[in-house]
Amino acid sequence: MSESLKSFIRAIPDFPKSGIMFRDITPALLEPRAFKEICDELYKHCKAMTVDKIAAVESRGFIFASVLAYKMEIGFIPMRKPGKLPWNTIKEKYSLEYGEAAIEMHTDAISKGDRILILDDLLATGGTAAAAARLIERQGGIVEELAFLIELTDLGGRNVLGGRKVYSLMKF
Amino acid sequence: MSESLKSFIRAIPDFPKSGIMFRDITPALLEPRAFKEICDELYKHCKAMTVDKIAAVESRGFIFASVLAYKMEIGFIPMRKPGKLPWNTIKEKYSLEYGEAAIEMHTDAISKGDRILILDDLLATGGTAAAAARLIERQGGIVEELAFLIELTDLGGRNVLGGRKVYSLMKF
Repeated sequence: MSESLKSFIRAIPDFPKSGIMFRDITPALLEPRAFKEICDELYKHCKAMTVDKIAAVESRGFIFASVLAYKMEIGFIPMRKPGKLPWNTIKEKYSLEYGEAAIEMHTDAISKGDRILILDDLLATGGTAAAAARLIERQGGIVEELAFLIELTDLGGRNVLGGRKVYSLMKF
Repeated sequence: MSESLKSFIRAIPDFPKSGIMFRDITPALLEPRAFKEICDELYKHCKAMTVDKIAAVESRGFIFASVLAYKMEIGFIPMRKPGKLPWNTIKEKYSLEYGEAAIEMHTDAISKGDRILILDDLLATGGTAAAAARLIERQGGIVEELAFLIELTDLGGRNVLGGRKVYSLMKF
């Protein structure tokens, strides 16, 4: 990864609440070279994996996971906020850096033994990612790896992911 | 478009509330051939456009718009639910098929004169799409076209889009 890529991530103090330094990816989305480099770097890392599907956490995770699903020619599983998915779902709750939340997945998204790559934009405390992994595993899937655009290393998110493989493109 | 593509769109009666027939795109996302065909058909339609950026409505719109942004090598503008974008935003309210809502965009997403392709998964009553177009135009952008994966023709969404160019891949 070129070091200049990090310059497209904007630091926003006190969002969404006081004391949080938010990492805003929208400048990297606006600049086609930066967006392409992010997608290509993620693809370079993931393309040799033996995975059946990619699971993405709503909604920024969708942006990168869909490009990977397209390029890797694998299925795309959306994990969404409660009440958004219209069919039969399972749910996992988790604690956020700021508050509580839950994500849902359709029960038909995973076939037993499916190897799954989980992708999200941000690894912070790891609560969302751990919930995503539990959704996969409850349905009989195998979490091959969790990949992130950005890792906030001080928050120790890797430590709550139970020894699963973790990759991040940028560390702050 | 192959007719079989429509078979990957699942009809869910009475979601999110009674009387609404929801069109669930998740089976098309799970099947790599269907997802690839959707993206390739959208790209085939859009690739000759002279556009600077693609604006996508949270969150299903992100899934297809990011693949198009990547392939067309143009910037990606996320339009999100209120309170989600961390920097300076403008907001537009709209009526949904079921309820009221609003979307926001960063004020630095558009430079005056930018030509913008708006993409969302669904054209129903057109309220969201019209709000998206107003966000672009308030910032001095030009809406080149609005493109949708699915159009629910009975709801007449095209009629509220003020003569702007509209494309949809599938009609129900």
